[in-house]
Amino acid sequence: MGSGAFILVLAVALAESIAPAERKCQLNGLWRNDQGSLMEISALRDNGDFEGQYLTRVTLSGGCAQISPLKGAQQQLGEEGWSTFAFTVRWDKFSNATTAFVGQCFVDAGGKETLTTMWLLREAVGSLEEDWKATRVGRNVFTRKRTTKGKILPSLSPPCEDVSSSAQ
Amino acid sequence: MGSGAFILVLAVALAESIAPAERKCQLNGLWRNDQGSLMEISALRDNGDFEGQYLTRVTLSGGCAQISPLKGAQQQLGEEGWSTFAFTVRWDKFSNATTAFVGQCFVDAGGKETLTTMWLLREAVGSLEEDWKATRVGRNVFTRKRTTKGKILPSLSPPCEDVSSSAQ
Amino acid sequence: MGSGAFILVLAVALAESIAPAERKCQLNGLWRNDQGSLMEISALRDNGDFEGQYLTRVTLSGGCAQISPLKGAQQQLGEEGWSTFAFTVRWDKFSNATTAFVGQCFVDAGGKETLTTMWLLREAVGSLEEDWKATRVGRNVFTRKRTTKGKILPSLSPPCEDVSSSAQ
Amino acid sequence: MGSGAFILVLAVALAESIAPAERKCQLNGLWRNDQGSLMEISALRDNGDFEGQYLTRVTLSGGCAQISPLKGAQQQLGEEGWSTFAFTVRWDKFSNATTAFVGQCFVDAGGKETLTTMWLLREAVGSLEEDWKATRVGRNVFTRKRTTKGKILPSLSPPCEDVSSSAQ
Repeated sequence: MGSGAFILVLAVALAESIAPAERKCQLNGLWRNDQGSLMEISALRDNGDFEGQYLTRVTLSGGCAQISPLKGAQQQLGEEGWSTFAFTVRWDKFSNATTAFVGQCFVDAGGKETLTTMWLLREAVGSLEEDWKATRVGRNVFTRKRTTKGKILPSLSPPCEDVSSSAQ
Repeated sequence: MGSGAFILVLAVALAESIAPAERKCQLNGLWRNDQGSLMEISALRDNGDFEGQYLTRVTLSGGCAQISPLKGAQQQLGEEGWSTFAFTVRWDKFSNATTAFVGQCFVDAGGKETLTTMWLLREAVGSLEEDWKATRVGRNVFTRKRTTKGKILPSLSPPCEDVSSSAQ
Repeated sequence: MGSGAFILVLAVALAESIAPAERKCQLNGLWRNDQGSLMEISALRDNGDFEGQYLTRVTLSGGCAQISPLKGAQQQLGEEGWSTFAFTVRWDKFSNATTAFVGQCFVDAGGKETLTTMWLLREAVGSLEEDWKATRVGRNVFTRKRTTKGKILPSLSPPCEDVSSSAQ
Repeated sequence: MGSGAFILVLAVALAESIAPAERKCQLNGLWRNDQGSLMEISALRDNGDFEGQYLTRVTLSGGCAQISPLKGAQQQLGEEGWSTFAFTVRWDKFSNATTAFVGQCFVDAGGKETLTTMWLLREAVGSLEEDWKATRVGRNVFTRKRTTKGKILPSLSPPCEDVSSSAQ
């Protein structure tokens, strides 16, 4: 092991011993799920409210997804530092559907953060008689995506066709 | 067709031409679901965002529920006026769980408004190994509860024991 | 306690001692849900296994439904007589989807039987990448439909087009 | 690449070209999910019905699980060979709950088989008023576990305490 690597390990060890509070799960930052969808959660307010952006890789319609706003809330941290959260995503330009997620943040012994979530995806249907088929359910697991600082989700957005032309 | 029937048809036609907006579903106001839970949704912003209050009649813990804040978003109305929505409720004082709802607003021929929703209720669990059992799913149907104007949910709140004493 | 109240208590006690079995929920028989779908459950075996037939009023494809076989199992009755159950329906001629229900049987004080169920409806998708959108979730409540004896579901079946011609 | 490796590649290529039918998903056999639970599905009947055994690694009660019978049905294979299925598991000795799974079988280009499933777990509750909280939802992914021939699930069963003593 070179001395550079050793110093890095030492620094990490020190950081962990100095700041055990970092073992608590922090929702803010950039996350990627098992389907390649990305979300970025902004800093949380004192009451647990947060906002952010979601960029899905998959759509019901097969159309190109735009970055969509998300809004949610985290429960107060329990003694063990685990916390549940819920948020909604508004896909207003490319979909008639709405999604809500619930989940919990976990940190393993090695410091790896995981958000396990389940979601409901609600499509618009034409009448109350069709309501029975409107709701899909699924599960996604997110892990933290390390990045340079700053709001970077827009820069990761795939090249959609021009929005103005999609109105045709 | 008798003249009575003709007048009725005319009246309905007039009503529709005069007040077509009433057929659109308005989320704001007070709603009551099939379990007796109440929610009050405030006026929506232009982008569909809304806030409100939720008073559940049922809790996992069996404890007394406090009025809890809700936040969500409605999709843009489609041509037919149906709209889907999603919101989250933060039960921060009496529960370690979080709930998210998705649903759609329907208006029948008689003007009766119905919100059909499905929800996920996420409990905190102690480890990733227990994650499998953390999420419940259910369905609720809300109908509008007519009331006098104003924010009245607090006045409908059942008498909980004093909050300060519940901290014991 | 007045003599009227005493007589009432006595009557209830007698009713319970004479016909306690009626308070237990019996799955067998004909049931109708809130969408008008019908199911008929045959007599249960000792281990709780049962079979039956399901006639849905609604289909994803909009096509005409055939009577479909169902198979399931009831848990052993608990002390209170409530029992949970689960069953699957195989829609093999008119759908590429599969449905599974879970539920519980309740009897109210007046003897009215209710089956509350939730279900998952799984559609076939073309690849693992599309798996996320394949599962719908919903809820149905069934009440007993009184009929004359015998397997009568086939006689209630709506007039589908001739099955032989639908094979084209 | 050594000649040994080359011959192996050739053999695999030949096997695939000779037996393309193996690319179809076969439900029968032993499967293991992401939680370590095991299931063994017996040969399917012509109509798609199947039976098997399930050994869960996780229980709501935390108690020791027994091998439990499962029963289900596979839809007829579509043109692409993908098939959906559903089955129920009867946990009759150690739980008052019932589970139903729905899923689909996928085979990737390398021949790896995956069963993606979602499930509902229904607990018994004491009254209709508590019905709202009785149903949990989740997702499991199974992969084939290669074994020697024969019904081997019982031999993989973990050492439970003696059943007779668990009544204490």
